[in-house]
Amino acid sequence: MGARPDTPRLLHVGLVQMRCSPDPAQNLDRALALTREAARQGAEVICLPELFLSPYFCQTEDYAAFRLAEPVPGPTTAAFETLAAELDVAVIVSLFERRAAGLYHNTAAVIDGPRGYVGKYRKMHIPDDPRYYEKFYFTPGDLGFKAFRTDRASLGVLVCWDQWYPEAARLTALQGADVLFYPTAIGWHPEERASHGRQQHEAWELAQRAHAVANGCFVVAVNRTGFEPTPGTDPDAGEGIQFWGQSFVAAPDGQVIARAPVDEEATLVVRLDLNQMEELRTGWPFLRDRRIDAYDRLTQRFLDAD
Amino acid sequence: MGARPDTPRLLHVGLVQMRCSPDPAQNLDRALALTREAARQGAEVICLPELFLSPYFCQTEDYAAFRLAEPVPGPTTAAFETLAAELDVAVIVSLFERRAAGLYHNTAAVIDGPRGYVGKYRKMHIPDDPRYYEKFYFTPGDLGFKAFRTDRASLGVLVCWDQWYPEAARLTALQGADVLFYPTAIGWHPEERASHGRQQHEAWELAQRAHAVANGCFVVAVNRTGFEPTPGTDPDAGEGIQFWGQSFVAAPDGQVIARAPVDEEATLVVRLDLNQMEELRTGWPFLRDRRIDAYDRLTQRFLDAD
Repeated sequence: MGARPDTPRLLHVGLVQMRCSPDPAQNLDRALALTREAARQGAEVICLPELFLSPYFCQTEDYAAFRLAEPVPGPTTAAFETLAAELDVAVIVSLFERRAAGLYHNTAAVIDGPRGYVGKYRKMHIPDDPRYYEKFYFTPGDLGFKAFRTDRASLGVLVCWDQWYPEAARLTALQGADVLFYPTAIGWHPEERASHGRQQHEAWELAQRAHAVANGCFVVAVNRTGFEPTPGTDPDAGEGIQFWGQSFVAAPDGQVIARAPVDEEATLVVRLDLNQMEELRTGWPFLRDRRIDAYDRLTQRFLDAD
Repeated sequence: MGARPDTPRLLHVGLVQMRCSPDPAQNLDRALALTREAARQGAEVICLPELFLSPYFCQTEDYAAFRLAEPVPGPTTAAFETLAAELDVAVIVSLFERRAAGLYHNTAAVIDGPRGYVGKYRKMHIPDDPRYYEKFYFTPGDLGFKAFRTDRASLGVLVCWDQWYPEAARLTALQGADVLFYPTAIGWHPEERASHGRQQHEAWELAQRAHAVANGCFVVAVNRTGFEPTPGTDPDAGEGIQFWGQSFVAAPDGQVIARAPVDEEATLVVRLDLNQMEELRTGWPFLRDRRIDAYDRLTQRFLDAD
């Protein structure tokens, strides 16, 4: 393996795994309080879960849910700007963005301490599956893949369904990202948990660990936790999503170095030595050998034989 | 999750995990015998390890090793054509290809039962690390990524170092491959095994399991086993490569459904239901949502900020 430089290049990341209540004001207060708590534990970059201001409204297609959206930057980023400046931390804030009438995105804002709001990433890959009706709500992102340079590190920002796409991880890492952050809202359909639950969670985790390996960088996934019933169903029927928590950090060798529990809120603060990337990327020089002359057909949907 | 069609679409794959002796004729005889053994156990597609005809000569840069190369198709593919026709099996045969004076490739030939030799894949990603001096020997492949259609299944063929590249897996899967085969020669430096061995093996396995998940297909990795000393070193010094065996099959959900031992030769025959791909790809429709409009920069080396 490659050699690690003698002086560590430390970054402390904070993962806020939250339960999200029906009350946005309460969720905002809680997110601000947990951000403060993570900073108190030494976190320098703090990531919140996907769309933490509300229950995961995409379980149904409901026009009323569009009222939850707000501009980005807007009132919520303003609240985090104040806090981030006070604490001198960077924060990744996942929001339901209203861009114009009838035009909405699933967006992550990046706030960098005293610099304030520095930009946003709009979720590029939008899922649409039973209880995850995101294509109804979110226009696919049009800002491309993005890494945000801060004084402490270069922060790659992606969102949830993006985590299944090696292309997204690669294009973000190629911009120099030290860490790929994935605010997430993923869980089990309770009726599938016994038959598929372990495999689904394992696939989710290993897909992201593989991004760390392929790109020689860190990966931070921040999920919500708790059970959220499907609106309009009999509460006793148990229909809904059991968010699986288990927010985690993977090192550039793919090892999981921290993992939150399934069913509890958690604020993890994890110490990273970014110089581990130097060691891994010289030991496993995958970036050196990419066949960029032979990748052009990745822009095709499928390579049909006829 | 998606529903699996009622009628299974079965494919039995055979993995021949071999120890490779200094005698190419002996290795050929043994590979033919183990191919026959795999077919006897029901295998329909059989994959041999990378460059199984000889010790892994890339441990040093030695001009004499070029004498091991042969044309593809050539004498070894001819021997496998005879056997494959007799047994009615497909075989993936990894060879050191001599294309012209001074022009050599790391090539996998595909032989399809009575159809005989149907084509070859030339390793696209060539490593070069201590004891894996492949850039000295092998010109990077110029045939692109390939899937080979047979009556039984579409066979994606890649080789070893390719397994670290999501681009390679994707471009092969997009051609309709049901299974990605990786003939491999990977092992530990004995002096690193205690400190890094578990993590290295785990990264290797999870990178390929992630290809299965991202592409909703099967992955078959076939490694060699045994310790091979570095030529020219004191045999008592223990310098060399401890090939880590552990050939495996991953299902489209990323689960490892078969794994060979570390230190022993093994002939695994594994029953796959290719319809599991239908189930997984409808349940996790990643191919549906790829942002092909935003992937063009994957053909760049790095996305420098300035």
